[in-house]
Order: sequence, then C-alpha cells, then structure tokens
Amino acid sequence: MIDVGIVGGSGYGAIELIRLLTHHPYVNVKYIFSHSKIDEPIKETFPHLSHLTYQYEALNSGDINCDVVYFATPSNVSKDLAPALIEQNIKVIDLSGDFRLSNRTVYETYYGEVAAPQQQLDNANYSIAEWSDVNPQTTQLIANPGCFPTATLLGLHPLIDQQIIDYDSIIIDAKTGVSGAGRSLAQHVHFSEMNENFSAYAIGKHKHKPEIEQYISKLANQEIKVIFTPHLVPMTRGILSTMYVKLNQHVTGEYLHSIFKEYYEDKPFVRIRDVGVYPKTKEVYGSNFCDIGIYVDEERQNAIIVSVIDNLVKGASGQAIQNLNLMFGWHEKTGLTQTPVYP
Amino acid sequence: MIDVGIVGGSGYGAIELIRLLTHHPYVNVKYIFSHSKIDEPIKETFPHLSHLTYQYEALNSGDINCDVVYFATPSNVSKDLAPALIEQNIKVIDLSGDFRLSNRTVYETYYGEVAAPQQQLDNANYSIAEWSDVNPQTTQLIANPGCFPTATLLGLHPLIDQQIIDYDSIIIDAKTGVSGAGRSLAQHVHFSEMNENFSAYAIGKHKHKPEIEQYISKLANQEIKVIFTPHLVPMTRGILSTMYVKLNQHVTGEYLHSIFKEYYEDKPFVRIRDVGVYPKTKEVYGSNFCDIGIYVDEERQNAIIVSVIDNLVKGASGQAIQNLNLMFGWHEKTGLTQTPVYP
Amino acid sequence: MIDVGIVGGSGYGAIELIRLLTHHPYVNVKYIFSHSKIDEPIKETFPHLSHLTYQYEALNSGDINCDVVYFATPSNVSKDLAPALIEQNIKVIDLSGDFRLSNRTVYETYYGEVAAPQQQLDNANYSIAEWSDVNPQTTQLIANPGCFPTATLLGLHPLIDQQIIDYDSIIIDAKTGVSGAGRSLAQHVHFSEMNENFSAYAIGKHKHKPEIEQYISKLANQEIKVIFTPHLVPMTRGILSTMYVKLNQHVTGEYLHSIFKEYYEDKPFVRIRDVGVYPKTKEVYGSNFCDIGIYVDEERQNAIIVSVIDNLVKGASGQAIQNLNLMFGWHEKTGLTQTPVYP
Amino acid sequence: MIDVGIVGGSGYGAIELIRLLTHHPYVNVKYIFSHSKIDEPIKETFPHLSHLTYQYEALNSGDINCDVVYFATPSNVSKDLAPALIEQNIKVIDLSGDFRLSNRTVYETYYGEVAAPQQQLDNANYSIAEWSDVNPQTTQLIANPGCFPTATLLGLHPLIDQQIIDYDSIIIDAKTGVSGAGRSLAQHVHFSEMNENFSAYAIGKHKHKPEIEQYISKLANQEIKVIFTPHLVPMTRGILSTMYVKLNQHVTGEYLHSIFKEYYEDKPFVRIRDVGVYPKTKEVYGSNFCDIGIYVDEERQNAIIVSVIDNLVKGASGQAIQNLNLMFGWHEKTGLTQTPVYP
Repeated sequence: MIDVGIVGGSGYGAIELIRLLTHHPYVNVKYIFSHSKIDEPIKETFPHLSHLTYQYEALNSGDINCDVVYFATPSNVSKDLAPALIEQNIKVIDLSGDFRLSNRTVYETYYGEVAAPQQQLDNANYSIAEWSDVNPQTTQLIANPGCFPTATLLGLHPLIDQQIIDYDSIIIDAKTGVSGAGRSLAQHVHFSEMNENFSAYAIGKHKHKPEIEQYISKLANQEIKVIFTPHLVPMTRGILSTMYVKLNQHVTGEYLHSIFKEYYEDKPFVRIRDVGVYPKTKEVYGSNFCDIGIYVDEERQNAIIVSVIDNLVKGASGQAIQNLNLMFGWHEKTGLTQTPVYP
Repeated sequence: MIDVGIVGGSGYGAIELIRLLTHHPYVNVKYIFSHSKIDEPIKETFPHLSHLTYQYEALNSGDINCDVVYFATPSNVSKDLAPALIEQNIKVIDLSGDFRLSNRTVYETYYGEVAAPQQQLDNANYSIAEWSDVNPQTTQLIANPGCFPTATLLGLHPLIDQQIIDYDSIIIDAKTGVSGAGRSLAQHVHFSEMNENFSAYAIGKHKHKPEIEQYISKLANQEIKVIFTPHLVPMTRGILSTMYVKLNQHVTGEYLHSIFKEYYEDKPFVRIRDVGVYPKTKEVYGSNFCDIGIYVDEERQNAIIVSVIDNLVKGASGQAIQNLNLMFGWHEKTGLTQTPVYP
Repeated sequence: MIDVGIVGGSGYGAIELIRLLTHHPYVNVKYIFSHSKIDEPIKETFPHLSHLTYQYEALNSGDINCDVVYFATPSNVSKDLAPALIEQNIKVIDLSGDFRLSNRTVYETYYGEVAAPQQQLDNANYSIAEWSDVNPQTTQLIANPGCFPTATLLGLHPLIDQQIIDYDSIIIDAKTGVSGAGRSLAQHVHFSEMNENFSAYAIGKHKHKPEIEQYISKLANQEIKVIFTPHLVPMTRGILSTMYVKLNQHVTGEYLHSIFKEYYEDKPFVRIRDVGVYPKTKEVYGSNFCDIGIYVDEERQNAIIVSVIDNLVKGASGQAIQNLNLMFGWHEKTGLTQTPVYP
Repeated sequence: MIDVGIVGGSGYGAIELIRLLTHHPYVNVKYIFSHSKIDEPIKETFPHLSHLTYQYEALNSGDINCDVVYFATPSNVSKDLAPALIEQNIKVIDLSGDFRLSNRTVYETYYGEVAAPQQQLDNANYSIAEWSDVNPQTTQLIANPGCFPTATLLGLHPLIDQQIIDYDSIIIDAKTGVSGAGRSLAQHVHFSEMNENFSAYAIGKHKHKPEIEQYISKLANQEIKVIFTPHLVPMTRGILSTMYVKLNQHVTGEYLHSIFKEYYEDKPFVRIRDVGVYPKTKEVYGSNFCDIGIYVDEERQNAIIVSVIDNLVKGASGQAIQNLNLMFGWHEKTGLTQTPVYP
C-alpha cells in the first residue's frame, strides 16, 4: 500500500484520479491539495464526492509524507514544485505539459512560458504506457502524455516503427470533448454557445503538435513534422483522432490490420476493431481503453487510422495510473478494469 | 418606419431582437449600445452577425434620436436610464425585471436591490401581449414579462378568469433551457458540468414567483400564492411549464379544452393542442408561439396544464416585438411570422 | 462465487449489469441470453465490450446451470419464463414490471396485458433495497423496482412513515434521461427530434404510478393516490424527481432535514444534501447513489423533496445487484462502490 | 406568384422548405405530397406546424397544376417521377442524389441502384448556386447539391480555379450534425447511442465523394480524386468541412485570404472570416450562409480551409430556394434573409 497526494485538487484531472484510484488495491489517496480552497471539504466543490470526507490542504513540500505526488495542474506549476518533492524521494507523475518537451525552445514557443531547466527535462520519462521504458528502480519523474498525443501516437506508432509510411505525409484531424478544456470558465465553453456547436481551433499552434512530433521523430530517428488540427465537439468526454498517411509501399487493408493486431496483441488497453469497423468515442467512455480502426485505400496507397480514447482517462488520469503501475512494478491493469459506461 | 435602439447589446436578448427585427417591415435598428464594447464591430463578439456592420455605441441619452429604446439588460440598469429617455418622449420596452413588480418591498426582497420609484412603477405597463391593455396613445413604458411568467400565465389565465380552480392549489414545476441564464460565465453553466445534467434551483426564492403571483392576484382580485420550482435542462432554448391545479367543480377534459380553445381562438401565437396531446419545447424553437396541452383527472378533479415557449422569443425578445406592435397600433404578428426551426 | 445468467442481453439493463458485475468479487456472469442474436459475439452489438468474449445464447431453462437469473426484459417475458427457473431452484431477479404489482387488475389496466398468476405475484418480493425484507433463506423471486418509483419512494418513505404529510396532497413531477426508454427505436427518441427537446408524456397513465401508490399505501396502511407526471430530458442518464407534499403540522426545514438524515444514516447509497442544497443528476452518474435535497416552505406548510438517481444503476441494474447482495447475505455495497463519473 | 409542390413531405428537407418558403414573397406552397400519409393533416406528424392547415396528398402527376415541384426524397424516387412532370412543363428541383452524377457507372457503384437514363442526367443542371449557370429560359431540372459537397466545394472552388494547389493532395475531413441522416429510424442515431458520441463512418465509400470529384474535375479540366472522410457529431444541425491541400507555390496567408475575399465579394451568402479566425457551425444555424476561414502554413506550403453551413439550409432546402430564385430570375437572396439563430 502506498500513499499518494494530488496537486490541483479542484480540477477535472484530480477528481478523475480520485474516481479511479478508489478501485486501486494498492493505493491510498492521502492528500488532496488546492491553493484556492484550503480547509474546504471536497464535497462543497464536488457534490458527487459527498460520500468522501477529504478536505483540501495546502501543499508545503516540507511537511508531506507520501510515496507519489500527482500534478493535475495547469502548465507552469509542476516545474516549480516537483523538484523539491523529488529531492525528498517522493516520486512525481505530472499530468501537465511542463516536462513533456525536452527541447526548451520548442516549449517556450508553444507554451509562451519559461521552460523547466534542461536537467529536469532530461530526467523526466515521457511515457506512453504501451511503449514505455519506465523503470521501477530508477524513474522518479514521469511526464504523462497529453490527451491528443495519446490517441494519436497509439495510432501512429506501428506505422512509424514499421517504416511503411511517407513521413512527410502525416495529417492529424483530431476532435475532443469539452472537458479537455478544463474547469476554468471561458466564453467559448459556456453551455449556450458550446452546445450544438462544432469548431476547429488553435490551427497550426496547438501545444500537442510538438509533443507528437517529438515522439515520432525520436522513434523514426529523424525529424518529422505533422499537420495537426484540433476540433471541439459538443460533448463532455472523448477524443477521436483521424490520421491520414501515405503508404510508401503497396499494402492491403488486411495486412495493415494484421500489423496493428500484432503490435497490440499483449496490450490490454488497446482494442483493434475488425476490418471495416471504426470505433466511436462512447465505446471507451469512462474507461482506459484506446480503440483503433484501420482503413486502406489500396489503389491510391493511403491509409486512414481512427483512434478513440476517453480524454480524461486514457488521455490523462487513467494513463497516469497505468504509469504508476509501471513505476511500482505492478501489472498495468491494476485498478483500471472499469468497463466503458454505455450508453 | 421607426428607429429603435437596443441597450445591453452584448447579451442574448439583444441579438435575438436583432435577429427578429430583421424581418420587421416598419422597424430600423439604429443603435446598439454596450458599455463594455464601445466602438467594437458587433461581429467580433457575435460572428453569426458577420454580414451586419453595426458598431457598439455608448448610450448618452442626450444625443440619441429614435422612437423606441429596448433594454435587454440585467436588473438594476433600466430603472436608472429609462426615465431620461421617456422624458425625451422616447418610448421604452424593458426586458429586465426593473419595472415588473409594482410593490417595491416585494421587488427588494426578491431582487436584493433598491426598487424603482413608485411613480415609475405605476407608469409601467406589464404586458402579457395576449391579455394586454397597452395603448398606442398613452403607453410610454412597457415592462416585458419574464420567461417563466409568460409560459405560466398564458396557461393559468383562463383558469383564473373562469374561477374554476382552487386558488390555494397552484403548483408550477417549470423547466428552462440554459440560455435563460444569460451570457455571463458561471460554473454551473460551464459546458462540461451543465451538459447531461438536470437540476432544480432557487427553490422558493426565484424572482419570477412574485411576478406570477402579482398577475393572477390582480386578475382574481384577491391575493394568491403559488409554489414555483424552476429547473435547468441541458439544452439551449425552451421553457416547459407544468402546472398543477385543483378544480373547484367537476369538469371534463373536453370541457376544459374547449375553454382554452375559446380563450385563444383569435390569439395567433397561442396554439392549443388536441385533447391527449402535449407540446414539446422544440415545437416552438425560434418562434413566438406558446403551445398548450391540457389534462384533466376527472375522478380526482385535478388538472395539469403543459405550456411551452422559446424562452428567448415569446419569453423575451419576441414578446417584446409583439408589445412594440401593440404600442404602435400595428398587427401583433408584424415581423413575427417565423416558423419554428425543426428539427 | 455464484454463477448468473442474464436474459434480455441486447438491452441496456443487461449491459449495465455486465458493467457493474465486472467488479463484483463473488459473481461470475456465465450466460447472456438473447433470442434475437443467438451465437453472435456480444461485441458486434456492443463494441464497447470488445474485450469480452461472450456469445449470446438461447434460454432453454432445462439446460442451464446457475444460481441466479436476471431478467432485463420488456414486460410480458419474465412472467412466462421465471416460474420454470424457480422450480429448478434458480433464484430470479426481475428488472421488468411483471411481478411488481400485486393486484392483477391494476397491472392489466396499466400494462394492457395479462397479469401473472396471483400466486406468483404473492411470492415476489418487491424490494426497494434500503427498506427491503428480502430474506436469504426464503426469497426466490425479487421484483426489482422501476426507475421512477425508486427515486420517488426513497424520497417519500420517511414522510409517509412519520405520518407528517397529508396523504391526499402528493404530486410527483419526474424527469428522466432518454435511456429509460430503452434501446428500441422510436420516432420521439430519434436523435434529431429528441435532442434540444423537453416534453411531458404519458400524463395520468404511466405504469410507474400504481407502483408508487402500492408501496406508499402499504406503508401507510391506507389507500393513497398520487399525481405523477413524467418528463423526458435530452440527456442519456439520470432521473430527478420533484415531490410536492402538504405537511400536516408545522415543521421547520431543519427538522425535516434531520428526519431524513436519521432515516438514511446507515444507508450507504443515500446521501442527504445539506439544508439549502439540491442534488443534480450528474452527481450520481454511473453510480448506485440516490441523493436527496429537502425544502420546507414553513409559512405555507409545504415541502419539496428533490431526489436524483442514475436510472440505469440505482434505477435498474445497480439496485438489482444490491438486491442480489441482500438475497445472498452479502454486504449491500459489495461490487457497487463505483464513484460517480463526473464531469 | 408561383405555385410549388413538395414531394417527400414527411422528411426533414420538406419541412425546412416549408419553413423557409413562408418568407418568400413570390411563392405559394400549394401541395405537400406523401405516399405514406395521404389525407393526414401535417400537424399530426409535425406539431411545430400546427398553425398550418396542409393535408398530405398523393402525387398523381396528371392532376397537378403548379410551376415547380421539389423532390425532397431518398434516392431512387425522383428519377422515376420527375420526367413526367418536366414533360408537363413543370420545373423540377431535386434535393436527392438521383441527377447529381452524370456518369451512370459511378452512380451505380456508390448508390447501389440503377442510374437515371443518360439523357436525363445530361439535362440536369448541377447547381452550386454561387457558381451556377442555371438559365431562367432553359433550365427545367436542377440537381441540388449534397450537403457535404456544398460546404466543401465552396471552399475548394477558388483553389482549383486559381490552379494554386496540387490536385493530388486534397484531403477532406468532414463533420455533420445528425439531421443529415434524415428522419428514418436507425440504431446509430437512436438518442441514447448518438448522444455524447462522435464517430467516423462510410470511410472511402460515401456517396458525396464522387460528387465532389466530378465538380472539381470538371473545373480543373482533368480527373481529380480526393480523400473524403465523413464524421457524425452529436448535434442536430451543422456541417464543418476541414480541407487540407498542398499549395504548388509559395503563398502567404494574407494572399490566400485575399483570393477568397475576391471570389466571394459579391456572393451574399458566403462570409469570409478575417485572417486567424475560423467559423463555427452554430454561427450559421438556421440560415443560408456558408462561412469560411483560411489558414496557411507558409513554411510547409500547406493550406487548411474550414467551411461551415447549416446542412438543412445551405446544404439542402436553402440552396434549393436560392436555385429556385436563379431559375426564375429573381435576386438570389429573395426569401432567404434569415439571420442565424444564436445561441
């Protein structure tokens, strides 16, 4: 049994961690930190947790005593607070973007803020859990991937690893539910304006673009650029990423499908749909699954990969628990067996 | 052709007035006022109006030259600004609550603010357009009714007027789409928390309760209290009011239905459903209709009246145009012939 | 460890049982029956269950070997099939309405079908789990309550049991998400017509009206009639029941609140909100909770009770597992500790 | 004043025609035809039209007497019925796909049905209204474009016409609201399964793919193939088409923007957003506008065009009225001045 603390307790990442960790047999949630709500019972902010008796606390790193701290915070928080914890031998899993990009200049271009010191970035393990090299002995800091990158990279990984696509051809048309925008108020996510409304946003400048490029460039061992366009869907949860790639060889739909089946054969959270079937976001709602469908236009040598996740689970808190399991040497499914909530 | 100005130009009431007045043959929208957005083109705030070239202006009552001014403002604005306009012989139609309640104490209890002077309240004409005594010769100030009261009073009026119900028995269970909460940001109408969520609110203390009571008390010539519970529906537009009353005599469903048919025979915006059929909110979406269904439990002598409107049209801007028509002696349908948008 | 079978495997009740039973430590789901889909893998109908390998089977009562069978079927199925199972000593929990009403005439009036034989009705235990007398030794057949009755009766029980209301005064204005209408296609739940639409339906003749009346009449030991109006909300899950009652004595809001706190003190699934706070449907989404808020108009001696549940969990499959726990003498929370999915 | 008849009166296309034609000063809707509902009042199927007294009629081409007939029918209806009308000198505007594809083999591949005779196809005028050559003197039959093609072709037209893109590079990622699927019941558009769900469908085989290819191939005077992936959004109305193209020359964002401004300068229904601003579907809700935003990645020479329409208006019935105006030599805006319904 380990004790964990959660920073950013008034956000959606934190309450999703609480929801999921309830079922984790080896974890005790000990602290829930929130600067803005110190000493308030959690049920005042989140009545759905009325059966729990947590009170928000202030994070004073000197006083806390636990095994792991989760940061479910906006950017620019963990990079200041995590180092002191790590120094005390507390492991850190960061759900924000602060430690995801190893190139400081790229971070500063896309985030518009000062990057963490290079040494910290080098110590951080960016962990798409299915393709992770997290080591229970040595990993102290995990950079938990972003929601769009998770859905997208699980779809692109086999294609890049197999070197069967033209690296210059990747176009990612991604769609997310509104909870990805967090709990902070803004006009465009005001119910009356977001409801029955669909839009593209941040074209050409979304923070998750360099994150995707970094991962696939490293995997391919050469610099790759992508076109990445996020869209906002009038629903609360779910990401669907439609990926367009040019195949560099003639390949049948069946063959490409078999590649994906093989890559994800022993990955319990990735479910490859049958040929001709494409996943829908609701089919993973509330669960840690990533479901993938594959289409090949054999004549024109294009492939389309459709990948879905729940942005708050596999795209954030669920993968953060999967990464916790890797960090402690437990089976990756531990505490993550929730069946999708359907309908 | 008359010129109108609209105060509160950055809110939903104003843009709905603009949408509807586009089709009004005798009206020119001359000014759109907004304190917070002076000199900004309207399309920056509302891109759906990109074909229009309005710029927001400051309201300086001395400088303006028009026939009517609409206030589509929060409470506590029109009561300060309307008198100067009226003095200049500009007619005023107020969509806020400032002039609706003739009893200052009641206003101050429910609104928590200082009421307008009694004389102004006495000059205001509270006008449910179907049962209005607005006079083109004399009416200078119209208090446009609230959204819940409009849906509810059109349902209750025949019952009270016919004196066939127990006045002590009235229970109003009302449900509204989220646009009724306006454009200001708030946590409970943040998309991710309002979507897929249904709730009751302001039980026992909603501002529309005394407005309903004032109207029916005056009609019945005795004080009547009601139980009124508003609910918030995860949709943008629409109000459905379910009214429960005890009949004071044996009455069949057919008979009560015939009463309603008679009362609304020559009222083009009120459509009475056939016996056994109840209206749905989407059946009036975007239009000025109020649709009503009637149920009688003959054995227990109870009746249930179901009434629906679009809260932004018949519940606000549409009725405000219908009232404009009355104020100028035009046919009440002028400019208001929009068919409901369905589906 | 017990084995269970589920009849009606292509409906929402069945897949919700599967979702929840996944976490039950003493239950193995052995059979999933569906007449219309025999031998089909479940993932074809429900891709969200793609990680499961169930195939639909035909129910031939002679061949099956398990401890309990759930009926998650439309009405008029279990009354024909359950008796043969019970005879084989297989316990039955019926989620349909077939065994809920002990008066055959009432059943036939509201369901429009032939009722089960009186002896079977007498053997069935109608079990609102919080107030149940299910006996592990003797109960063979549980009639799992309907969704509206569950939300409503948990709110009315303390009021009736304390005899503090006028029995003639009960008005129930209930609102349900669309999943309550099941998986069968119909025009009014076609997405384009149900979305952004709110309506009342089945006024005066809904099947759940006599179910509510039967329970409270028995509790009060006298016949009680209610007014019950269901409404359909454009959302998938959730019921909110607003109950209006006349108090037969002067009672403060605090006092009535304390009564509810006391009644539900040791009931882990019922959470009473603080005075002045009312629950929202999303606060119980995906969980077995029933949350209740209480309002008293002290001047007029009326009370309003607001109760919310997830119609597919506490209103169907969740309570059916809670009842299974009672039937086998396990703690009622076993397998039902899911935290609400929020947002 | 002309008389029109509408075939397919129980579908969404027909009621949208009725809604819009209400405001058309030169049109009288004389007949509404429906095989399945002969002699029924329209209000029984569509209570939102309760103020209208239409009854459905049978279409017997010999008996009818009007100037234009609209077909708002599924495919495979108009090709059988239109010729007899045209022979009687009744003009026809067909909202179905029957006359859109001039190549019979392509039609039969994508529609799975026998194509209309070649001569009829040759007589049909496929009319994207902004780029139409409809002639009031000679055009008898208009093939009204599909919803996805309309949104897409208005975005692609200037790019093709200017010859500034690589024709082999066009990828169209399109998203539609659910009303595009029509009024017929189907499991995937059942509210509980469509709500809060986002999906791709018909990948590689949607009927609108060859329609897009035919138009741009003709414009470019060479065969062009596109990649086209439609998606279904949990909302009722609206299409957003995201188009990815490779520029064949260095072009700035400002320059491409100016091209679009020029092309649509005198087209009242197409509104080009400012540089850096992208349109949202709700900004055209209920109106005949098509709004377009333009992005250029100058470094990599890619452009992204975002185009939105209301699928039932500009994507169907609205454009069908715009085409009617062209057919009769009226101003294209006649009867189509509806402002978008927002929020």
